[in-house]
Amino acid sequence: MKIQSVNKLTDYPYLNMFETRYEDAEGRDRVWRFVSRKNPPRCVSGVWDIPDAVVIVAFHAGKNRLVIIREFRVPLGDYQYGLPAGLVDKGETVADSASRELFEETGLTVTRWIKTSPLIYSSSGMTDESIALVYVECAGEPSSRGNTASEDIETLLVTQEEAAALCRDECIKVDVKTWLVLSMYGATGTIC
Amino acid sequence: MKIQSVNKLTDYPYLNMFETRYEDAEGRDRVWRFVSRKNPPRCVSGVWDIPDAVVIVAFHAGKNRLVIIREFRVPLGDYQYGLPAGLVDKGETVADSASRELFEETGLTVTRWIKTSPLIYSSSGMTDESIALVYVECAGEPSSRGNTASEDIETLLVTQEEAAALCRDECIKVDVKTWLVLSMYGATGTIC
Repeated sequence: MKIQSVNKLTDYPYLNMFETRYEDAEGRDRVWRFVSRKNPPRCVSGVWDIPDAVVIVAFHAGKNRLVIIREFRVPLGDYQYGLPAGLVDKGETVADSASRELFEETGLTVTRWIKTSPLIYSSSGMTDESIALVYVECAGEPSSRGNTASEDIETLLVTQEEAAALCRDECIKVDVKTWLVLSMYGATGTIC
Repeated sequence: MKIQSVNKLTDYPYLNMFETRYEDAEGRDRVWRFVSRKNPPRCVSGVWDIPDAVVIVAFHAGKNRLVIIREFRVPLGDYQYGLPAGLVDKGETVADSASRELFEETGLTVTRWIKTSPLIYSSSGMTDESIALVYVECAGEPSSRGNTASEDIETLLVTQEEAAALCRDECIKVDVKTWLVLSMYGATGTIC
């Protein structure tokens, strides 16, 4: 497999579509279209150091519960259960971004850093979007005071039993990462 | 939050960009752009019954190992460690799709169905893409004979220790779902 060219197809501020021409496993010329938050996309720039976004797996040690948010997601036209998350600002570290996003979205404060994943990829058939999963303990009372105008977020602190029930509920929308974290917490009582 | 309109911005066969106008939490008009594999996208059609793709968490009971693939992903311009997966064909059930994709990508055969997730969402800030995670046991010897020309896939059967090591490796690219499944298997020795 060999990338031959990458062309930008749209011109929007946050997300753009690109077209790659490449040689497939049998040597034939093919086209693949994908979206990227970066311009040029990472397969052109070769910059894979900082993720596009941080996703926070936060355990509230004082209340012995996992932190989940319920948030309106425009592409779904509906509310979704997710983990606190957000785009990494220019010049920001992964830890600073995680700490800021957790506070803005839930009002909670990081009290212990557990572990951070390497850069991992959201859905590499359609995008080069990458995230880091940041595992922390946190403290405080949930609050939506830090929400921006484009956000509409409710914080939920869930028990092991509630986590298992959310995973089985077919009437709600749940993010992929969140479903897997809820699944692990529901089965084992731990987040990692 | 209220969706006011959704307009199609591009005209490609598999993936398109859409623009939503919506009212934010403070009543202001805003714009959000996202991509969808569906036309119209799900927030317009209201059709949420079948996922865009299936992702297979397969445990090889005979060899006592988890099934992972290493595959060239055009949007990353590189090889990625992932789970066997693929788009659901028109008219296909989730189970048929999972069984077909597992065989095509790895040569392995489903021997037991463990559980299937509800529809869950890949990255709802940028897309309405949904998947179902299908947990199975499988048997057979890995083979790439079923790969299509656009595929370049190697099957790996990993132990609990190898799973934990893959999660820590910063020199490889790993899909988000796969990292979380490897993380659970590495920590507990089970897939769910």
